Amino acid sequence: MQGLAPSSRVVVLATFFLIGFGVAAADGRRRLVSGSPDEPCRQMTLYYHDILHDGANNTANATSAAATSPPALSNDTYFGMLVVFDDPVTEGQALPAGAEEEPAARAQGFYFYDGKGSFNAWFAFSLVFNSTARRGTLNLMGADLMGEETRDISVVGGTGDFFMARGVATLRTDAVEGLLYFRLQMDIKLYECYV
Amino acid sequence: MQGLAPSSRVVVLATFFLIGFGVAAADGRRRLVSGSPDEPCRQMTLYYHDILHDGANNTANATSAAATSPPALSNDTYFGMLVVFDDPVTEGQALPAGAEEEPAARAQGFYFYDGKGSFNAWFAFSLVFNSTARRGTLNLMGADLMGEETRDISVVGGTGDFFMARGVATLRTDAVEGLLYFRLQMDIKLYECYV
Amino acid sequence: MQGLAPSSRVVVLATFFLIGFGVAAADGRRRLVSGSPDEPCRQMTLYYHDILHDGANNTANATSAAATSPPALSNDTYFGMLVVFDDPVTEGQALPAGAEEEPAARAQGFYFYDGKGSFNAWFAFSLVFNSTARRGTLNLMGADLMGEETRDISVVGGTGDFFMARGVATLRTDAVEGLLYFRLQMDIKLYECYV
Repeated sequence: MQGLAPSSRVVVLATFFLIGFGVAAADGRRRLVSGSPDEPCRQMTLYYHDILHDGANNTANATSAAATSPPALSNDTYFGMLVVFDDPVTEGQALPAGAEEEPAARAQGFYFYDGKGSFNAWFAFSLVFNSTARRGTLNLMGADLMGEETRDISVVGGTGDFFMARGVATLRTDAVEGLLYFRLQMDIKLYECYV
Repeated sequence: MQGLAPSSRVVVLATFFLIGFGVAAADGRRRLVSGSPDEPCRQMTLYYHDILHDGANNTANATSAAATSPPALSNDTYFGMLVVFDDPVTEGQALPAGAEEEPAARAQGFYFYDGKGSFNAWFAFSLVFNSTARRGTLNLMGADLMGEETRDISVVGGTGDFFMARGVATLRTDAVEGLLYFRLQMDIKLYECYV
Repeated sequence: MQGLAPSSRVVVLATFFLIGFGVAAADGRRRLVSGSPDEPCRQMTLYYHDILHDGANNTANATSAAATSPPALSNDTYFGMLVVFDDPVTEGQALPAGAEEEPAARAQGFYFYDGKGSFNAWFAFSLVFNSTARRGTLNLMGADLMGEETRDISVVGGTGDFFMARGVATLRTDAVEGLLYFRLQMDIKLYECYV
């Protein structure tokens, strides 16, 4: 009977590692895996600004451009129009004040519209961080269900400071100005990190 | 020597958590990681229906459209033609019977043809579930090696009921009607789940 | 007090499983998760060759083609030009010597240019292995930051011999011949494997 007590104590210890955060440590950085949707291992809120080229007059400011014309299926919702972007991403809602202010990150990738009866979109892109605070990339993809107040896409990988990250980004449309500008709030929660 | 017995017993217990399913639990949902390709933590079979717009006459029924014309490299295999889709996904082989029958999910994304000598394709899309049974998305990408009887693509992330999912989807062409309709059987097996 | 000794011994053993490599084993293949960026569970160096169709004269050799014309935003950096490819991937720097020599793999997917002031690109593709040595696919995506000497993209999934793989691929431009040929060295390190 004397042996059973330590045994149970160790099980508690071992499950401590597994429940909550599973921890695998080595070489400076430790792998953290969250045990719960409520406890991300890393979290940030960022704003994505898309400034679409109008084809003529806003070349200096535009950060994205339509690479395809919408095919004939559903012209009013731009079904099939694919937009390539290299967009600024900021910590606050305001655009960077001129070329000398660096954005927090850049979002490089594409979206296309894929709604027939109503607007809908799909995204794949990298968040590219290149500051003293954060260096590296996060890679994201998923459906931007424009009919929903908020919608979740996947963080499927990361590099540099975000080595091997995974998580979920919640998108919310924060501003729209016609076809040529929109801003998304992105709440990014990572559940797999190396820290 | 008395101490060794409980020690071994605990190792068995600790490896029980790691072998088979590694379990990390908290807050309602538990993280499950499968230890073996034969033991997915979640599994389903679905059918994907692609109804391509012919550019003129099937606008009411079409759920996808070519966003690019195939470039000149290999016209007979449509090399470079990119198709954007918002396709119905069903549990059985039949298409939903009219607008009032909801499909099990929608597949939103794109494919393009990338075979020069023979047909081949590449897919990236989200499965969007929005029923009482399942709500959330799965995000998939990979090569649709059309010369193979079955081919595997990756489930790289998930949201909602499929929070942080990963796995493999096995595709099999189930029906083809000319260029304008094809149906894929998708056997989806998840090996990382929160349940 | 006698009970404490085995207890500590077991904790060491349990953390051995977690630190370094977390091991979950069953059914032939074991799941390996690396605990450190310096200790991948699998590693290889491959060369990617892109031979772009010039639209007329190199149809026999070309393995990729532009599916979109660059929109007007930034013509000199081809902003928005999307290229679909089925490119050979080799273990050495040389292209396969004729049709009878099989490449180590094929890279099937797409890239587009997304740099406004200077060249930049974004990739998503599958590495398709089909030899006696390796059979299966790896799925990758990320920003190809062309201004950097090396840049990392994510391995977000795998199938077959690379079942459920994740990792990082480091790209380095190894050769460029005008617009029509470039070669990338890809150092691929996997940190999640089933072996």
